[in-house]
Amino acid sequence: MSVFTPVTADVLVPWLEQYAIGRLLMLEGIATGVQNSNFFVTTTLGRYVLTLFEDIPRAGLPYYLHLMAHLARHGLPVPAPIANRDGEYLGTLADKPAVLVSRLSGIANMTPSPEHCARVGAMLAGLHLAGAAYGRRQPNPRGLGWRETTAARVRPFLPAAEITLLDDELDFQRGFNASSLPQGAIHADLFRDNVLWVDTDMGPFIGGVIDFYFAGFDALLFDVAVTVNDWCGTTDGLDAARVHALLAAYHEIRPFIAAEVESWSAMLRAAALRFWLSRAADLHLPRDGELVQVKNPDEFRDILIQRRAHCPPLPGG
Amino acid sequence: MSVFTPVTADVLVPWLEQYAIGRLLMLEGIATGVQNSNFFVTTTLGRYVLTLFEDIPRAGLPYYLHLMAHLARHGLPVPAPIANRDGEYLGTLADKPAVLVSRLSGIANMTPSPEHCARVGAMLAGLHLAGAAYGRRQPNPRGLGWRETTAARVRPFLPAAEITLLDDELDFQRGFNASSLPQGAIHADLFRDNVLWVDTDMGPFIGGVIDFYFAGFDALLFDVAVTVNDWCGTTDGLDAARVHALLAAYHEIRPFIAAEVESWSAMLRAAALRFWLSRAADLHLPRDGELVQVKNPDEFRDILIQRRAHCPPLPGG
Repeated sequence: MSVFTPVTADVLVPWLEQYAIGRLLMLEGIATGVQNSNFFVTTTLGRYVLTLFEDIPRAGLPYYLHLMAHLARHGLPVPAPIANRDGEYLGTLADKPAVLVSRLSGIANMTPSPEHCARVGAMLAGLHLAGAAYGRRQPNPRGLGWRETTAARVRPFLPAAEITLLDDELDFQRGFNASSLPQGAIHADLFRDNVLWVDTDMGPFIGGVIDFYFAGFDALLFDVAVTVNDWCGTTDGLDAARVHALLAAYHEIRPFIAAEVESWSAMLRAAALRFWLSRAADLHLPRDGELVQVKNPDEFRDILIQRRAHCPPLPGG
Repeated sequence: MSVFTPVTADVLVPWLEQYAIGRLLMLEGIATGVQNSNFFVTTTLGRYVLTLFEDIPRAGLPYYLHLMAHLARHGLPVPAPIANRDGEYLGTLADKPAVLVSRLSGIANMTPSPEHCARVGAMLAGLHLAGAAYGRRQPNPRGLGWRETTAARVRPFLPAAEITLLDDELDFQRGFNASSLPQGAIHADLFRDNVLWVDTDMGPFIGGVIDFYFAGFDALLFDVAVTVNDWCGTTDGLDAARVHALLAAYHEIRPFIAAEVESWSAMLRAAALRFWLSRAADLHLPRDGELVQVKNPDEFRDILIQRRAHCPPLPGG
């Protein structure tokens, strides 16, 4: 469930008068998403999504909203924040920070083909190209500092074999310096459930990339690694055809440099570690009143083990 | 026809490298529109429309492009100009000023119902509300100065009865001062062929309002009058149900003031006169090499005669 704060038409109708998008026709809670309350809002002038932020500090929100606006302005299918009549994206509803964004078309595909993966690779490269000119900078909220802190907090809850794995991987990652790789604004959470697909007579099209609330400034290759780990995985490793399709399509638009080719294995491992740690923290360290859906950390522990054993080739260099 | 300047994939592919929208999949000329060359452009990342400006001076284009961007940012379904990787909307292709905009869904409806007219009234009011905060200002290119100049140029070509009508109407309009009415950015050409419709289970929705290249700063009521004259007309006057639906929906979002109620008849006449004059000019004064589709001026001469005889009520005041 992801409606933590209820919103009724009675409170929404006067709130919408701040905007130029017409009169409310339909309001409906959205039952997916893990950290915000989301609603479909349809007015006489269009279809929008209303998000109330439940646990992201207000001060951090302009970075995400302006990033989405920046990418939309560059022609990418991302939710575009809607400005109210004062020109502001961020408002307040039910005492929560709130934003309206454009509603995109499509549905998620959890069993992507190489063709889907090629589109995702092209999209990610497009996001990175357009993001290069984004003027704001905010660190990756799940970056190095978070990794060390979270590892220390979840370590006591892990069985011995996992502690050995964690310590060894942390040691390895501490010896790896990503700061010399190309950096920029990254999505950092481009999982299959964050991409909406529309079927057309020219094949599958991405109708929208959603959920930018883990975005930040970091190595572009980390974003590629997060994406490959989710889109190209099999139960016992990576699907070579999907990996090749995704990376080749990305490389065509933003060619990988030699330093990235050399760092690829470490990045796949770092991306796996990041999600192993966040899921372990959600499981072992639930915050009071937190409503996050707990996903199984073992999945990403196993992905980490697999990536330590094998790394697919990265084009370029 | 509206492809005056041919564009091939050979020239478009390298041009698109300035953008972050992926690789070209499809390029197709669009056979509607009267003053620009338009193409559907589909890339791996989305669907766009490419416009090459054939006769609008380059210096005037930023006003239109930033207006569209402003309205899109406020949540209205208008073509959003796409920024290239340098952040610029306006480029050059085949030696013409050129822009990519988002491609909107829907098809025009030339036989609108009162329900369609209500949606159009709401949309126009939304455009005016959002446009109030638009910082740039450029005069209506078909405003008072243009009217006098064009009337003087076409007058010699008109039969005696039309000259009498024209002189009388110009006299009347000179005695009418619209400058005290609410002003702002107006579309000024919101005809049926400039609105794209999508059918939904909540009735007809406007997928897009297009062709902002007659926009300018002028009385908002002039925009309402242009719209009513086209959307609500019958062969011998106005359809009361469509007029009521359009005006009531507009009034609900941006209430008309008393001065507008008093000026309504004059505005309907002014709007009819504007299109009578432009069509007469296209017919009698074709410019060398100009490729404009000539529409029959008699239609708007007759609308002018009808509006002089009868004016429907405007709500509010």
